Amino acid sequence: MTPEELHQAAIDKINAKTKPLGSLGRLEQIAIRLACLQGTLEPVVSQKRILVFAANHGIAREGVSPFPIEVTEQMVLNFLKGGAGINVLARNGDVGLHIIDVGVGVEWPEDSKTDRRFFIEPVAPGTRNFLQEPAMTQEQCEQALESGRRQARLAREQGIHAIGLGEMGIGNTTSASALFVTVMGIDPDDAVGRGAGASPDVIRRKAKAIRTALDQYGAEAQALPDDKARAMYWLRTVGGFEIAGMAGAILEAARLKLPVVVDGFISTAAAAVAITAEPSAREACFFSHKSNEKAHAQVMKQIGEEPLLDLGLRLGEGTGAALVLPILEASARVMTEMSSFEDAGVTREVAS
Amino acid sequence: MTPEELHQAAIDKINAKTKPLGSLGRLEQIAIRLACLQGTLEPVVSQKRILVFAANHGIAREGVSPFPIEVTEQMVLNFLKGGAGINVLARNGDVGLHIIDVGVGVEWPEDSKTDRRFFIEPVAPGTRNFLQEPAMTQEQCEQALESGRRQARLAREQGIHAIGLGEMGIGNTTSASALFVTVMGIDPDDAVGRGAGASPDVIRRKAKAIRTALDQYGAEAQALPDDKARAMYWLRTVGGFEIAGMAGAILEAARLKLPVVVDGFISTAAAAVAITAEPSAREACFFSHKSNEKAHAQVMKQIGEEPLLDLGLRLGEGTGAALVLPILEASARVMTEMSSFEDAGVTREVAS
Repeated sequence: MTPEELHQAAIDKINAKTKPLGSLGRLEQIAIRLACLQGTLEPVVSQKRILVFAANHGIAREGVSPFPIEVTEQMVLNFLKGGAGINVLARNGDVGLHIIDVGVGVEWPEDSKTDRRFFIEPVAPGTRNFLQEPAMTQEQCEQALESGRRQARLAREQGIHAIGLGEMGIGNTTSASALFVTVMGIDPDDAVGRGAGASPDVIRRKAKAIRTALDQYGAEAQALPDDKARAMYWLRTVGGFEIAGMAGAILEAARLKLPVVVDGFISTAAAAVAITAEPSAREACFFSHKSNEKAHAQVMKQIGEEPLLDLGLRLGEGTGAALVLPILEASARVMTEMSSFEDAGVTREVAS
Repeated sequence: MTPEELHQAAIDKINAKTKPLGSLGRLEQIAIRLACLQGTLEPVVSQKRILVFAANHGIAREGVSPFPIEVTEQMVLNFLKGGAGINVLARNGDVGLHIIDVGVGVEWPEDSKTDRRFFIEPVAPGTRNFLQEPAMTQEQCEQALESGRRQARLAREQGIHAIGLGEMGIGNTTSASALFVTVMGIDPDDAVGRGAGASPDVIRRKAKAIRTALDQYGAEAQALPDDKARAMYWLRTVGGFEIAGMAGAILEAARLKLPVVVDGFISTAAAAVAITAEPSAREACFFSHKSNEKAHAQVMKQIGEEPLLDLGLRLGEGTGAALVLPILEASARVMTEMSSFEDAGVTREVAS
């Protein structure tokens, strides 16, 4: 079957199920997308995994978060002990968890080093402060992207059917906002939000940092040949290692036709970079929930996707993705497990 | 602890979890509600069950549905074989299923009679056509309510922590719309919608049927002493056996402090009757999803609740409730399984 034939066959298959046409709403659209992505009328999302990338940010020294940077390390240890929000929601949704240190900048306790869900691959002990110099070198950015790509390949090799993305990095809403401004053209005043609970003072500091970065690096970005080069330039200039890790995971997942659930504000910044660099990557991306942050809705509109949930989540860590992966699974099972009118002996609706 | 002390203790417990204040949004509100309802700081939603009430409607003879009434029976058989939408979504969410025939009006095959998930308790072979006479007698209405109450008690006895409601009954959007008009004061033109895919002609027929019923029965309703009597009067006059079953389940669940997830348009009509009759029943009700039907948003506003999902579902059967019960479970587990800042050694946010 050609992709167009498969798409039509998936629509026909859903429409033959015992329910009024279209009455499972977005679940039907997800089922059709999964069929097209996986290249089969029998899509499967039973093995699910969240990848949580963690790193520290030089920009955090500018007082852009109400939490001290030690919290990145403390929360990674919390992930490993199973007590964080993402642990609870992943367990509840039968979703596995990989934690990847791409730049937290600490020595981990011995017992954590043997934890098979924990990948210690720091690019550096945090990014540099992008108000002073680019957050990372080109080599560092490539290394963080590769950590993400490797996780996507590992997921595929280990029989995972869909991945979700999460992150931990004190100060990373400022990086994400900066990427929305630079890569997606969002106004700086719209791009900064409360993050993990910032005050009006902190919000002003965030907006100022982003404007400064635009002034400092904008000319060089303009001189670049295309959108892909510009997206990657801004990723390394104002981004974070965990954002680059997620962008790499998205790009590789898309290449492997592996569905990937994007979480909230920060991981959407990674998706914005990935989709700007490779527009076809969008096909693999499912956006889990609306973020309270102002810029998120604008970016969703530009990407042309509607997040699935609106539950007021703003925790990150992949918590929204953990709630949505089971909905992807449910959608796939609608396609594969529901009876057709014919099989079940149910009379179809008549024109009225 | 007094209920007020328990409420405050639940808020304090959630606020001590390792996450920015309020960052799990509606999950936190659900967790607090579950704690208050179950009377404990350790709420549990691990055992979950959907109750699907099925019955036929005399009003279906007026051409108000594009499906013939045989489909009610055919779909019940589909439920028993596991091939319907609700079967798939319930399996996916680890949710059990009870099917209750409260008035389908057929003789079931022998093998279905021994199915322990199937309760054959028909009040009558369908309601009467409410354009000609009240849909049911007072005794019949009470019998259908009691079927629902019994299921709520059974759930409690069998260790179920939360129930969801679903229904099957060709023609029942007309009954539900009529209840929204009569019990909630919705305008008939706003109250009728597409149902399971109705055409403009069918919509006109539905609105006309509802106006006729208002003319026919309105004076007697006005003469009744209170809202409770009026809600019950309209339930038996224009309702359905499956709607009465769900209303009974809600009333008894509320009495037993058993959380109950209301599905879409039809089960919200049951909730509207139950909450009008017993306003405190609202405390037990969680509304699963926005319905595409116009009246639903107005009724939600009047009841003062915001449905959790907005995925374009309009299937009924309890499909929305099956998606939401795992979200209730996740919320309860946030309360019981997430570490506190103190336990995890994570630094709290500072005033910024």
